[in-house]
Amino acid sequence: MSTIRDVAKLANVSVATVSRVINANGYVNENTKQKVEEAIKQLDYRPNDVARSLFKGRSKMIALFVPDIQNPFFSELARAVEDMANKRGYTFILCNTDNDNQKEMDYLQALLQKSIDGFIFVSNTIKAIQIENVNVPMVALDRKISSGLASVTVDNRDGARQAVEHLQSIGCKQIGHICGPENVSSSRNRLQGYLDVVKKEDWLTSDFVQVGDYNIRGGFHAGLEMLKNNPSIDGIFAANDLMAIGVLKAAEYLNIPVPEKLSVIGFDDIELGKITSPPLTTIKQPIYAIGKQAAELLIKQIEDPETEVKSEIHDVELILRASTKESGEWCF
Amino acid sequence: MSTIRDVAKLANVSVATVSRVINANGYVNENTKQKVEEAIKQLDYRPNDVARSLFKGRSKMIALFVPDIQNPFFSELARAVEDMANKRGYTFILCNTDNDNQKEMDYLQALLQKSIDGFIFVSNTIKAIQIENVNVPMVALDRKISSGLASVTVDNRDGARQAVEHLQSIGCKQIGHICGPENVSSSRNRLQGYLDVVKKEDWLTSDFVQVGDYNIRGGFHAGLEMLKNNPSIDGIFAANDLMAIGVLKAAEYLNIPVPEKLSVIGFDDIELGKITSPPLTTIKQPIYAIGKQAAELLIKQIEDPETEVKSEIHDVELILRASTKESGEWCF
Repeated sequence: MSTIRDVAKLANVSVATVSRVINANGYVNENTKQKVEEAIKQLDYRPNDVARSLFKGRSKMIALFVPDIQNPFFSELARAVEDMANKRGYTFILCNTDNDNQKEMDYLQALLQKSIDGFIFVSNTIKAIQIENVNVPMVALDRKISSGLASVTVDNRDGARQAVEHLQSIGCKQIGHICGPENVSSSRNRLQGYLDVVKKEDWLTSDFVQVGDYNIRGGFHAGLEMLKNNPSIDGIFAANDLMAIGVLKAAEYLNIPVPEKLSVIGFDDIELGKITSPPLTTIKQPIYAIGKQAAELLIKQIEDPETEVKSEIHDVELILRASTKESGEWCF
Repeated sequence: MSTIRDVAKLANVSVATVSRVINANGYVNENTKQKVEEAIKQLDYRPNDVARSLFKGRSKMIALFVPDIQNPFFSELARAVEDMANKRGYTFILCNTDNDNQKEMDYLQALLQKSIDGFIFVSNTIKAIQIENVNVPMVALDRKISSGLASVTVDNRDGARQAVEHLQSIGCKQIGHICGPENVSSSRNRLQGYLDVVKKEDWLTSDFVQVGDYNIRGGFHAGLEMLKNNPSIDGIFAANDLMAIGVLKAAEYLNIPVPEKLSVIGFDDIELGKITSPPLTTIKQPIYAIGKQAAELLIKQIEDPETEVKSEIHDVELILRASTKESGEWCF
């Protein structure tokens, strides 16, 4: 591969002159500029980004931390962040953290050594104190980390209220909730929204509230437990779609027809919810849009360090499908 | 952040000496070494990977190209590659190519400028000639690019044969096939396996073979077309699970009971196939294992350029679930 020295030699100018042409800074006369450009073309010379990043302290790379890319919610976020990174000329680094704080800190240190330009965190394990000395831009996505950090989230509490109010409006009297892990802020906010509507704080310690793991399997087991112990339950709000899909499987296993005897509603609106039988009523998050916005905010901070730190909260909306007692859209 | 110069100054030695201590090459006397190590500790100095990669021409970064991370088959591959990269100290870069050759070439050039150490390609659009001058290690995953390039694939033709033979063994007489895009090698091989068993080349131009897009929606429309035009069809082999799920939805739409009137079998064994109603019989690829092996092969080539270029072909296996006329396992 050609070097900047080869270009300088062929064009018969100094390395500094070639550098001025490449970086378009400093004066170079038109004739010299043309000679350099011809030499670059002839040698197929590509300025090395590594050398540039050493010089500027920037790498044009951003990283996204997610618990696991195999969760379709995170793969949609990742797609959005990568699209925006690519559009703006940044390389996209993906880190699967498994919600393991040690893994998160190891990734963080390794990437700082690579002069990473910024981070987007989807994390409920990173503590504010762990990143207070990190001096590159950061954005928290889906889950807040601290008030001083830019964040992009949705109105989880309002979404949960909408879900439970919808179940009430179609006649459900005994509404259970399968919540996510207690250390995840979105999960606590959705539980709060549920309690706002049912107004039964004592259900918190009853079978009407079961803790799941935000995965299908956890939703299945929590749903099974809930439906076995409370045959009167006629509506379940699961804190995400994956757990709601687990509940549909639990109902199928117990021969409880959905939606005739049980209405089920999820949260997120992942693609998967369209292909279950019956298709899943849910609270739609603008997943792609929040991923895209997190990337935009991050790049803005990288390119203009004076950018104000913002917390963006997006609205959510009810999407009716056939898992609740009202016929939803056919999805294809 | 401290620099190597700060360390040299504090330890009262030259920058070259600090460099010898950090990189453990060249002689440094024990006393000097200790002074340098103390200075590094005191200043919390971290050797900069960017400077190292400039020096060594290596970045400790590898990239994976996939059409779209939102496809669960690719997100499982990505997880496997990232796990192995992380274990071996490599940073993982993800590129969504949308099967767009221009995008692939743009990513390739941009990453070569970042001194990327190697590439894993899942691609049916990259041509051998486009990468013959790339002088970093590369591995083709899932789909071959050229015989000179290391690759990790599965025995697609044998898997297709197993699928169609299974449909015959449970009594299906009229077996249709929904194949993937014609420019994808795995898709051509699966079609060939289907033809090996049904032994009806003329079906190629009939309604018994429909072309899909490897996505749910394409499988739905191809399935609808096929079932409407051939009410006698009692078995469908779809070239991947996503299209098979589309076929299940088409059967549901047409009120054709599965598996009583129609048996459906897919290919891949993505997690999704367990949660459909009925759960999907399929040909299981060792998805995580092939992703992991591709990363291992790549890192081996990076760390030892003398490594022999290999083509690994993995076996596949039939997984019985309830979408074919034999009761499959309950999945939780």
